[in-house]
Amino acid sequence: MSAGEPIKCIAAVAYEAGKPLTVEEITVDPPKAHEVRVKIEYSAVCHTDAYTLSGVDPEGAFPSILGHEGAGIVESVGEGVTNVKPGDHVIALYTAECKECKFCTSNKTNLCSSVRATQGKGVMPDGTSRFHNSKGEPLLHFMGCSTFSQYTVLADVSVVAIDPEAPLEKVCLLGCGVTTGYGAAIKTANVQKGDTVAVFGAGTVGLSVVQGAKVRGCSKIIVVDLNDQKKDWAIEFGATEFINPTKDLKDGQTIVEKLVEITDGGLDFTFDCTGNTQVMRDALEACHKGWGQSIIIGVAAAGKEISTRPFQLVTGRVWKGSAFGGIKGRSEMDGLISDYLDGKLKVDEFITHKRGFSDINAAFEDLHHGDCLRTVLNLSK
Amino acid sequence: MSAGEPIKCIAAVAYEAGKPLTVEEITVDPPKAHEVRVKIEYSAVCHTDAYTLSGVDPEGAFPSILGHEGAGIVESVGEGVTNVKPGDHVIALYTAECKECKFCTSNKTNLCSSVRATQGKGVMPDGTSRFHNSKGEPLLHFMGCSTFSQYTVLADVSVVAIDPEAPLEKVCLLGCGVTTGYGAAIKTANVQKGDTVAVFGAGTVGLSVVQGAKVRGCSKIIVVDLNDQKKDWAIEFGATEFINPTKDLKDGQTIVEKLVEITDGGLDFTFDCTGNTQVMRDALEACHKGWGQSIIIGVAAAGKEISTRPFQLVTGRVWKGSAFGGIKGRSEMDGLISDYLDGKLKVDEFITHKRGFSDINAAFEDLHHGDCLRTVLNLSK
Repeated sequence: MSAGEPIKCIAAVAYEAGKPLTVEEITVDPPKAHEVRVKIEYSAVCHTDAYTLSGVDPEGAFPSILGHEGAGIVESVGEGVTNVKPGDHVIALYTAECKECKFCTSNKTNLCSSVRATQGKGVMPDGTSRFHNSKGEPLLHFMGCSTFSQYTVLADVSVVAIDPEAPLEKVCLLGCGVTTGYGAAIKTANVQKGDTVAVFGAGTVGLSVVQGAKVRGCSKIIVVDLNDQKKDWAIEFGATEFINPTKDLKDGQTIVEKLVEITDGGLDFTFDCTGNTQVMRDALEACHKGWGQSIIIGVAAAGKEISTRPFQLVTGRVWKGSAFGGIKGRSEMDGLISDYLDGKLKVDEFITHKRGFSDINAAFEDLHHGDCLRTVLNLSK
Repeated sequence: MSAGEPIKCIAAVAYEAGKPLTVEEITVDPPKAHEVRVKIEYSAVCHTDAYTLSGVDPEGAFPSILGHEGAGIVESVGEGVTNVKPGDHVIALYTAECKECKFCTSNKTNLCSSVRATQGKGVMPDGTSRFHNSKGEPLLHFMGCSTFSQYTVLADVSVVAIDPEAPLEKVCLLGCGVTTGYGAAIKTANVQKGDTVAVFGAGTVGLSVVQGAKVRGCSKIIVVDLNDQKKDWAIEFGATEFINPTKDLKDGQTIVEKLVEITDGGLDFTFDCTGNTQVMRDALEACHKGWGQSIIIGVAAAGKEISTRPFQLVTGRVWKGSAFGGIKGRSEMDGLISDYLDGKLKVDEFITHKRGFSDINAAFEDLHHGDCLRTVLNLSK
């Protein structure tokens, strides 16, 4: 029994911005009250991990253990934990759900505030870390998850138990990308049968928006991406059209003009999954006058701003955003897992690469290649 | 009987940007098919009239007959008009409602498209004008209304009959300002009991937002204005607090910080009624994370843009706009008139000045004074 004892295991440590991760042995302390120690089985690499590692993220802090799209098995729980028990299969939640704060009880948002302040500082709710390296130096947590470690410690509000039938090497993707896009479509935007939809950016998030739009029976699902390699995927996931703005526009035509032209006035819903603020503007302005809604999902680079003429809004367009697809992780993950197990929600199809944990730096490289949606790491290898 | 004949009457003609209006005799042609000729009894002067007259409006065209907040009595109707008849008391609608276009039938917007293109060009739907001066020169229409003329011609979709008990010298204000603000609160935002609200700009529109918030039982109604003279009005119309950002902030504090501080995290709804794009940004950023919605009502100067960090939206704030309060003029004016007659909607209280028609240039001056909400012109004087 390891419960109550520190555990030595392998983790990938980010010591410095812009440098490769160091795969080494660390020590993971036992969970304190309302904390859960999880043996991470699988973790995918997401662009947000790469963004922070690059050093561009102004809130990135080092040394830390990155990773936030992971799944595993509860090893032990601290005092007062009632929502999971040792042996449970779980997904780590970077968007916690305490069910008690004014955000959770509002029923208007999934942005729980219970652990936000400490999570942003890279520590557990008591202000300390559960990780240290062989020199005894503490290592920071990341997004309340730190799934690039064979064992991690999470706040109990940041973990959800799932049906053990769901394969962890697949459903780890529900920890971020798939849920973010699918939820943005079916929850934040709440797209309906017959609606027209455009999705900017055909990565895991964008293609998951496409899935949501398809499930709801949207009449047009237009995917916009600069990379033609994404076309086949877009169609496979449900797109009705693919536009590459570098090739598919008439002379002098903008992507906004093209979209307005082929949709008789603009889209009912558009989604930015690129993080590019000019694309966010295009996405808004491609919305139909009177009712079109544009949802920002992508994370913009530090300091970047979105702009438009206010006339765009006064004439009925709505600009909003979505984080983790508006999904409340503890209350709603079950439904997503069921959709997956019932074959309604594609997850396996996003996994283009698999690697052993020791190859994690290569997994970060994969992200830069057009043939990669997600690389899943097996943490026992 | 004047029906079918041209009518000579007095109008205030805008011959040139930046110059006073010329009060002179003009000729008003009879209404063609689906047009209505109205004897305008009363018209108020709104900032949009002044904006166009100033020459700053890039779409302003001259010579024209301004005015869009007016009420009168139908003199005659053209072929095929079924919604009003001679003798009906009516309000001119700069936002038409045809009940047939895709906007009207969507039930998602009040932005009818039926006469939009010709209205924007200052002509009737057949592409011509019904006004000419004594030299025989045609004069343009304005916003589909041109209420600064003793007789005007409107498209039938741009006119609504009202209860003849409603005094025209008061309810002419429902043609723009009062409806724009009240509707923005009760329809576009659909504020609910207990919500917190901030309104930037305490003119007729802003104070009408306050009325809507009060009717719905909002818990805080904060008015922000640079002019202390507006405080008493704000309180009279229902504000619970008045903030003058030039005087009521701590050293170095911004209005956003102040509002967030006194509302435990921000407002449920904010409304820009200033047209200032920096204020629009403040209004958005003063919204509560997770659910706050900011509604742009003010008309910005040509070329001005709104900006913010996309993070503001990704964390749950919503940016939208409202035109004519989201109100469908022909379907919903009746309800506003009833609210007025039942004493639920203040209108009389906005009329701070009354003038004869020949004093119209003085009425434009009134707008620049802090003691003026609305000047109503009596067109028979």
